[in-house]
Amino acid sequence: MPTYKAPVDDIMFLLRDVFHIERYDNLPGFADASPDVLEAILGEAAKYCEDVLTPLNRVGDREGCKRASDGSVKTPTGFKDAFQQYAAGGWMGMSVPAEYGGQGLPETLTIAVNELLCSANMAFAMYPGLTQGAMAAILVHGSPEQKTTFLPKMIEGRWTGTMNLTEPHCGTDLGMLRTKAVKQGDGSYAITGTKIFISAGEHDLSDNIVHLVLARIEGAPAGIKGVSLFIVPKFLVGPDGALGERNGVSCGSLEEKMGIHGNSTCVMNYDGAKGVLIGEENRGLNAMFTMMNEARLGVGVQGLAQSEVAYQNAVIYARERLQGRSISGVKAPDKPADPIIVHPDVRRNLMTMRAFNEAARALVLWTALNADIAARSGDDKQRQAADDYMGLLTPVIKGVLTDQGFANTVAAQQVFGGHGYIAEHGMEQFVRDARIAMIYEGANGIQALDLVGRKLPKDGGRALQAFFKEVQDFLKEQGANEAMKPYAAPLGNALGHLQQATMWFMQNAMAKPDNAGAGAHDYMHLFGLVALGYMWVRIASVAQGKLAAGADGAADPMKARLTTARFFMERMLPETGAHLARIQSGASSLMELPAEAF
Amino acid sequence: MPTYKAPVDDIMFLLRDVFHIERYDNLPGFADASPDVLEAILGEAAKYCEDVLTPLNRVGDREGCKRASDGSVKTPTGFKDAFQQYAAGGWMGMSVPAEYGGQGLPETLTIAVNELLCSANMAFAMYPGLTQGAMAAILVHGSPEQKTTFLPKMIEGRWTGTMNLTEPHCGTDLGMLRTKAVKQGDGSYAITGTKIFISAGEHDLSDNIVHLVLARIEGAPAGIKGVSLFIVPKFLVGPDGALGERNGVSCGSLEEKMGIHGNSTCVMNYDGAKGVLIGEENRGLNAMFTMMNEARLGVGVQGLAQSEVAYQNAVIYARERLQGRSISGVKAPDKPADPIIVHPDVRRNLMTMRAFNEAARALVLWTALNADIAARSGDDKQRQAADDYMGLLTPVIKGVLTDQGFANTVAAQQVFGGHGYIAEHGMEQFVRDARIAMIYEGANGIQALDLVGRKLPKDGGRALQAFFKEVQDFLKEQGANEAMKPYAAPLGNALGHLQQATMWFMQNAMAKPDNAGAGAHDYMHLFGLVALGYMWVRIASVAQGKLAAGADGAADPMKARLTTARFFMERMLPETGAHLARIQSGASSLMELPAEAF
Repeated sequence: MPTYKAPVDDIMFLLRDVFHIERYDNLPGFADASPDVLEAILGEAAKYCEDVLTPLNRVGDREGCKRASDGSVKTPTGFKDAFQQYAAGGWMGMSVPAEYGGQGLPETLTIAVNELLCSANMAFAMYPGLTQGAMAAILVHGSPEQKTTFLPKMIEGRWTGTMNLTEPHCGTDLGMLRTKAVKQGDGSYAITGTKIFISAGEHDLSDNIVHLVLARIEGAPAGIKGVSLFIVPKFLVGPDGALGERNGVSCGSLEEKMGIHGNSTCVMNYDGAKGVLIGEENRGLNAMFTMMNEARLGVGVQGLAQSEVAYQNAVIYARERLQGRSISGVKAPDKPADPIIVHPDVRRNLMTMRAFNEAARALVLWTALNADIAARSGDDKQRQAADDYMGLLTPVIKGVLTDQGFANTVAAQQVFGGHGYIAEHGMEQFVRDARIAMIYEGANGIQALDLVGRKLPKDGGRALQAFFKEVQDFLKEQGANEAMKPYAAPLGNALGHLQQATMWFMQNAMAKPDNAGAGAHDYMHLFGLVALGYMWVRIASVAQGKLAAGADGAADPMKARLTTARFFMERMLPETGAHLARIQSGASSLMELPAEAF
Repeated sequence: MPTYKAPVDDIMFLLRDVFHIERYDNLPGFADASPDVLEAILGEAAKYCEDVLTPLNRVGDREGCKRASDGSVKTPTGFKDAFQQYAAGGWMGMSVPAEYGGQGLPETLTIAVNELLCSANMAFAMYPGLTQGAMAAILVHGSPEQKTTFLPKMIEGRWTGTMNLTEPHCGTDLGMLRTKAVKQGDGSYAITGTKIFISAGEHDLSDNIVHLVLARIEGAPAGIKGVSLFIVPKFLVGPDGALGERNGVSCGSLEEKMGIHGNSTCVMNYDGAKGVLIGEENRGLNAMFTMMNEARLGVGVQGLAQSEVAYQNAVIYARERLQGRSISGVKAPDKPADPIIVHPDVRRNLMTMRAFNEAARALVLWTALNADIAARSGDDKQRQAADDYMGLLTPVIKGVLTDQGFANTVAAQQVFGGHGYIAEHGMEQFVRDARIAMIYEGANGIQALDLVGRKLPKDGGRALQAFFKEVQDFLKEQGANEAMKPYAAPLGNALGHLQQATMWFMQNAMAKPDNAGAGAHDYMHLFGLVALGYMWVRIASVAQGKLAAGADGAADPMKARLTTARFFMERMLPETGAHLARIQSGASSLMELPAEAF
């Protein structure tokens, strides 16, 4: 059975040494989050994830969720108890303002903890994850009354949340949605329609489920401009917050799916269910986007999380499994064979995962810090810059971290050989679970389009230019340092490819937008490589500094980071040239065939 | 539910127009296989695969195989009937010499048919596939008596075959195997040990199962030089060929695995089972290699086959699913949205699969033709050259076609968005089934090592030099043809990368073998891209010729081939530069970390 050890040391190295989190003490909630406090909290989260959630991961996969004929859904053995522990630990509202019962700590911390949860048990982590997403929407768009009604109960874990967007005939194209909202005399709405793929739509973990539902108010304009967002609780809520009668919403069936079996993925039927509007009429997509940005960052974290836990188990196996002899000479003469970690191709898989995981974690935390600044800073300019950064990086993190995270679970499975294909080792579950992250919250093709079509041109390319400048400034700072050359020079080259690609779009995608669509996927991955490379240069710079200063007994981890950074530069970054070539080939060979010729 | 249409037209285009199969009429069995005969046989195979096997694919996945307490195994509903039809159709022995009851037709035809079988139902196709592999070993290494005892019954499908190599502690490193063979007074051997991952090890499709088992004869040398191969039938066979008593071999359990649920993957317990030696004592691995080369080519075909069927279903979905509008302007104004095939990123996925499938099919058939020449030609030199070619390309086909085939099933699933993750559409089954092909018959890392460590240096690099010459000669021929430049020039460049990489190994891997191991995976894929690119140039040349000549009403498929060839050159071939850069970075960043630092 797979094991998991939370990478608390690496998270602390990044927050403390690379990103100097104490510099943000002026932000609300950050003064309470000194590195020592962060480390203690992460230590608690690690214990919970390692001891409680990890053993339930395979249980959840084997048992799945069960729907009874009355529409109720039972989660796998142990999930309810684990959820109660999660709620009791105060994890749900860690970053929600204290006035609603939260702790107001940095969102960065919540995101760091979510990596641990998703490594230990991704299907489980979705229940609180969706609740946090729903809370985020209510926090930003809800009325004061909605906030006080819903948030405290959700923070306590007594109520949970969901997002209801997809319908059988529309997922990406939400303008086509048909779920109807009819205004009632009391100002509420009667919601009718069918939603599919609703994660945590029905389950036995909480007393009530707060569905956020996109629907079209009678007479609203066609398309996405006629879509509104509603709060539709499973049980109606009285003015005192007490649960009333059952609302007209139920789980029609559970989807049979490839993975995340521990999470209940529901078809939800709304049959005149009572809902209240959240935010403004016909501005539902806007409100939903608040949730979606957080959710997309969260899904990117799932990619990293699955890659991390798969990596850890592949390392253990590679150290223990004896098979063949090193081609550079026997390494374990006292054993019948060498451990397979001596083989370069096994190392290639392990190093690829490692080089991704550490940089991806850095990128997530750095972006999360920017999300905190965007939400909490009193300085308009700083807030805007952080918001730009977050908006630009969100599709990159979602798309690249889930694509590569999935690929890494496949690589980790490969290290196990035939044993990786067998269920009992758990490696194939990581592959099946990680796969969904490339699809939901906007399939990765949509992320690429969001990046190229929306985020690049936004505000005259302000966010992109700021990102280029940030990387260039850092490279310039390193310019004088000869020891940094092996890291900085390849990144400079990759950044050049990204800039050429950007220029190519400017010159070729205006007249022919298909050229942007055709290059979007490659551009997103090219961007991701530059962003991850930038993280490695920052990490390498700190590691070198620490080694030069004596490294406080941490010489080995710092040396390991330098080796891994070099691996990234030599082995992963060369891909940028291929991405650029593909982008510059344009749309013509893609679009030439008539549809019927396929 | 997924559908499948066998690509008979493309196979015939390749055999007839690109490879001119009628030129090989001098080979035994080829004169009986005129293009018209081939087309008729493929048409029959197509009907069987489309109508009988395709509908059973999901049945097999859902039901799996069931082991009863007596150790017997029941295959999924419909498999037995389908297997009887397969046997009755004469497919099993299509390429086995007539003296044993086969038809002596080209192996190329059997391999073409196997693509169809594997697309329709990979788990099912493994039962006859393993039988064909076992027959190949008996044909080459068996005694005359063994041949007449076993082959006719296997051809009739009354008996089936297996390969027993892996043990719990050894897969790749077969020198460690422990299964014992003790010589008996009658010249037979008593076989005792445990084998795992035995595909088709026990089932209800045939009256008897002929296990080929690697074991160590008492007192044999340690390591692979002490391993022998035995025939161990499930039921003992009397001198008249009649079935006798049950042998001491049984299925201890079925493995619970990620996919290919319709195939029974068994733990086989040998408890003093009676076996007879096949081939020479202690030369078992040699005999096994005969099966393994065929098997590896066959596994490569599985990668192609899963990619093909996944592609076909993704195309259907992309034509039907309405979602969003084309960024270059509305394409279906009468519909609520455009079909998603208008979106460049959807096209990118479809074209990637298509460009792979057609070239991979060509490469498989071209290599299969070489296998036929190697086995059947009367000309020593021609036979040797073909054998060189087959040996060189086998690891490339196994490794690259299964890696890319799997990636393509993932891409096809992605086209379906959320629906791709749901079991009922069948797309996630293709992913789970295709995954095994990267692992079994030598994990792809082993294929890469086989290519770089064994096949490249063999006979002073004779095979590789011949391959380079073949590609260069073809490019030279095309040199004068301006219209071929868009295909020939990129391939010339890619071939240059492959030659540089080869040179780099020669200069850097002698002194430091880890440099070869570190670059092996990239070299295999670089080689694969060149080989597939070579196929595209050959295809494009024929397509241009046909278009110039008026194309006999086949203008559209020829134009589609030219577009797809260009896509391959522009979008897939640029990867060769990245492979070269990784190879040239050597082993140091891979091998630097001590094992305990991971």
